[in-house]
Amino acid sequence: MPIRSIRAMCVLGASLLTGCTQQTAQTGANVDKAELSPNGIALPQGYKDWRLIATSHRTDNDSLRAILGNDIAVDAARLGQTNPWPDGAILAKLVWKDTVHEDDWPEATVPGKFLHAEFMVKDEKLYPQTGGWGFARWLGEDQKPYGEDDSFARYECFACHTPMKKNDYVFSRPAVMP
Amino acid sequence: MPIRSIRAMCVLGASLLTGCTQQTAQTGANVDKAELSPNGIALPQGYKDWRLIATSHRTDNDSLRAILGNDIAVDAARLGQTNPWPDGAILAKLVWKDTVHEDDWPEATVPGKFLHAEFMVKDEKLYPQTGGWGFARWLGEDQKPYGEDDSFARYECFACHTPMKKNDYVFSRPAVMP
Repeated sequence: MPIRSIRAMCVLGASLLTGCTQQTAQTGANVDKAELSPNGIALPQGYKDWRLIATSHRTDNDSLRAILGNDIAVDAARLGQTNPWPDGAILAKLVWKDTVHEDDWPEATVPGKFLHAEFMVKDEKLYPQTGGWGFARWLGEDQKPYGEDDSFARYECFACHTPMKKNDYVFSRPAVMP
Repeated sequence: MPIRSIRAMCVLGASLLTGCTQQTAQTGANVDKAELSPNGIALPQGYKDWRLIATSHRTDNDSLRAILGNDIAVDAARLGQTNPWPDGAILAKLVWKDTVHEDDWPEATVPGKFLHAEFMVKDEKLYPQTGGWGFARWLGEDQKPYGEDDSFARYECFACHTPMKKNDYVFSRPAVMP
């Protein structure tokens, strides 16, 4: 089944299913001003200072993305040790509305409105039910935690990432950077 | 005149024009293993550890880009002090071939082959003839310096950036990052 069909099913499934316990945890002392995610993950502090791992572009939801990583993640990416990613690795995906360059250049798109920041926190012991990854997302510039309750991580995030099991549940591959 | 038309003219112009002196300089002690650019600029060391300023996507040449900055550039971007950018700012643009995600996801594109890294080095005194910016580019993973001689910066880089004079000759705007 194509991944895009699986994703569509995931979104549908998430709207039908509720409940389910999701093991919760905070990511250490990285407590920012933003509220906790419903599954207990705190917004990793200083993530916008993290180094680049990859970018991506999607036409299905018109978005441009940058994937950053904390030091553990970046070190692993540069060593090619990302299957599995090591415990302690955190991946941050920053997502913007894909927007035509403002100076009459329709072939070029750039980051427009900031849509959300989402994270994958690798901890095999804390998140055994979701592939060893804790998932969390904060919406918009005011960083509102995503999810009605703690079920979103399993039924939305993890369900959609499951086809990437062969890549430790991560869609992104580290970009080549000489 | 649309920017894309100006760019097309620039490429044509670069193929017709030769000669012209371009003030040259090295960027301090940042000498990497790669050869100098023909205008004397050295590959800034450690640029892939710099922080993110923006990304972009182009369909005219099928590329995905990440724009990183040194500390001076990132500080200026976050303070909104980018018109003009301060002396000492360096912008790095990493460019990859836009490539469909390998797992049957045609709506998603990701960084493929690494095409080049290009830089804008702000120094009003060193580069008065090109808007206060020194331009340089290194091609591919083996980082071959771009340019037959030192005229490329004026006739290719600066000519194409001239329509962005109102934005201190920079196409990229810092992305919103809460």
